[in-house]
Amino acid sequence: PDPAAGSARTPTLAVIGGDGIGPEVTAEAVKVLQAVCGEQAFSFVDYDLGAERWKRTGEVLPDSVLAELDGCDAILFGAVGAAPGDKSMPSGILERGLILKIRFAFDHYVNLRPSRLYQGVPTPLASSVTDRGPVDFVVVREGTEGLYCGNGGVVRPGTPHEIATEVSVNTAHGVERVVRDAFERATRRRGKVTLVHKHNVLVHAGGLWNRVFEQVAADYPGVQTDYLHVDAATIFLATDPARFDVVVTDNLFGDILTDLAAAVTGGIGLAASGNVNPSGEHPSMFEPVHGSAPDIAGQQKADPSAAILSAGLLLEHLGRTEQAAAVAAAVTADIESRDGTPRTTPEIGDAIAARLG
Amino acid sequence: PDPAAGSARTPTLAVIGGDGIGPEVTAEAVKVLQAVCGEQAFSFVDYDLGAERWKRTGEVLPDSVLAELDGCDAILFGAVGAAPGDKSMPSGILERGLILKIRFAFDHYVNLRPSRLYQGVPTPLASSVTDRGPVDFVVVREGTEGLYCGNGGVVRPGTPHEIATEVSVNTAHGVERVVRDAFERATRRRGKVTLVHKHNVLVHAGGLWNRVFEQVAADYPGVQTDYLHVDAATIFLATDPARFDVVVTDNLFGDILTDLAAAVTGGIGLAASGNVNPSGEHPSMFEPVHGSAPDIAGQQKADPSAAILSAGLLLEHLGRTEQAAAVAAAVTADIESRDGTPRTTPEIGDAIAARLG
Ligand SMILES: CC(C)[C@H](C(=O)O)[C@@H](O)C(=O)O
Ligand SMILES: CC(C)[C@H](C(=O)O)[C@@H](O)C(=O)O
Repeated sequence: PDPAAGSARTPTLAVIGGDGIGPEVTAEAVKVLQAVCGEQAFSFVDYDLGAERWKRTGEVLPDSVLAELDGCDAILFGAVGAAPGDKSMPSGILERGLILKIRFAFDHYVNLRPSRLYQGVPTPLASSVTDRGPVDFVVVREGTEGLYCGNGGVVRPGTPHEIATEVSVNTAHGVERVVRDAFERATRRRGKVTLVHKHNVLVHAGGLWNRVFEQVAADYPGVQTDYLHVDAATIFLATDPARFDVVVTDNLFGDILTDLAAAVTGGIGLAASGNVNPSGEHPSMFEPVHGSAPDIAGQQKADPSAAILSAGLLLEHLGRTEQAAAVAAAVTADIESRDGTPRTTPEIGDAIAARLG
Repeated sequence: PDPAAGSARTPTLAVIGGDGIGPEVTAEAVKVLQAVCGEQAFSFVDYDLGAERWKRTGEVLPDSVLAELDGCDAILFGAVGAAPGDKSMPSGILERGLILKIRFAFDHYVNLRPSRLYQGVPTPLASSVTDRGPVDFVVVREGTEGLYCGNGGVVRPGTPHEIATEVSVNTAHGVERVVRDAFERATRRRGKVTLVHKHNVLVHAGGLWNRVFEQVAADYPGVQTDYLHVDAATIFLATDPARFDVVVTDNLFGDILTDLAAAVTGGIGLAASGNVNPSGEHPSMFEPVHGSAPDIAGQQKADPSAAILSAGLLLEHLGRTEQAAAVAAAVTADIESRDGTPRTTPEIGDAIAARLG
């Protein structure tokens, strides 16, 4: 079911600006949503979450807040995280207590991460690589299983005999729905799905992914399939990224590949993502791939493009296909007309909004 | 104990050429070892293992062969693997039954993978990246734990309710010895160790790696330390590889990072590796990072540089430091004088051997 279709009421968007540059870039995403859909199209509700809230109150994500978020139509997320040197914030508290908590609670099984190399954007790749063809692919990362479950534990902690385990949990149910989503997307794109795994070593999980992939592929005879071990996939991202259309992979491999994908297509400053629950039973969450960048926070220096592109994915998820396309086009036009002149965060947001006004 | 020091007898080197281009490149590595150490310095014993043997006999690595290998002083390994389309060879049979079996049986806890960007070698990276500084680092990959243990299993296989798990096993003992090896290497290099993990998500294993890393670091006050999440590490490999000196990481992260490292430094055709047991209790094994490349097998087209550089690592491990340096220098000189004229596998081997003769 399309989460917004036929609804006459004003959809509510939760806004979690977060820490560092998070609130700065999210403000521009809100600006652009208002420019393209009208000031009254959404009611925005701000949520104060992140490192600052934790330091002030000791709270990461109270159950009452999670319940409120569940009542929203979608979530715009900025970035969270204290400064890297800040030892008062134990590693993992926000990641697991906030970001992963929401992804798991709202069953965001499709973690959608498009990558595109825009014309004229500086890339770390040589022209011998970028000349091979246009780079435009999407990684469909599983978002609710694998090594991200938190399964595992520690025996004899802190001793010379400590044993620590992490358990990757993969289910036919979980793999099937995300693989099917990838094939569906491929039919609307260039018709190719690449499975990335490491089934020569991870035989249990790899066997499951392989089997389900082949079964789903049988339902899509028009879609071309490919398989790469994760190590080989990183090689191709660096040497021939044009070969990819849709990539489907597990939670951890997806995490690794999408950061590399962002790097080779001009940096995480341009990388958007959606944590999507396609059923619409819970709200989906849209966030730039970048972090809170405490080093440049408060200076309105951050590029809000990734946050704005994420808002575009939000519109698409809500069924506002034309407005989504307009946002993508406006951001593309802005990015491709950049000449290196520095602009502030709101200047970039204004310029993109103006193209939509 | 230095595995070869003081021994008057002729050391025995086991040679596992393997499949595809494996035997071709390994022959050149043997040629170079003979050129630099003399024809009589080693006695070479060939072992017929790999996809071809498995297809002929159903055997991967008989216990008796493993026991014989254990009696050798070191192992030269080429590459194994049938053609990718060959469905008669189930995934994982050779990887787990041969390569990983040897790594685990001989306790190869240091999987050593140097990366260096040679002058004039084509790289997928733009000059804006390679101009940042010389790229010359080594990944010390843990080789006997993590997700490579084979721990895990399947419940309700083949059904819509299948559950497949993979368990990453990490021990203080296993982490400590490889981290210490990395710090030792850093003292002989540029004095910097970067730990790569994902401790914000993999809190159990990440906590152990972190704690041990900090404890070992305290013994090396002159060594600078750094930490990167694995996703961020892939970004830096693509945008600023000059920042790395020694990288220490777990088995799976090391697998992924070293393929990417090879790609950005000119391809897996140049990437050497050593599966090292520093105690000398069992023989260490030296192998190019590349595979058996069935598509070009039998044509003497493969570049034997990675195999020859791996033989150089073997010499270093056996305490033949000067001969090891001579091999590295000869390969470097050969690589840096290449002008694109195609040469056969033996022509490249001959040219490198001639520089040592
Ligand atoms: C912050 C962290 C939990 C997260 C992840 O690993 O998924 C991030 O790296 C990402 O890719 O969104
Ligand atoms: C063949 C495979 C088992 C192996 C690994 O994953 O370690 C290979 O990729 C490597 O890096 O040596």
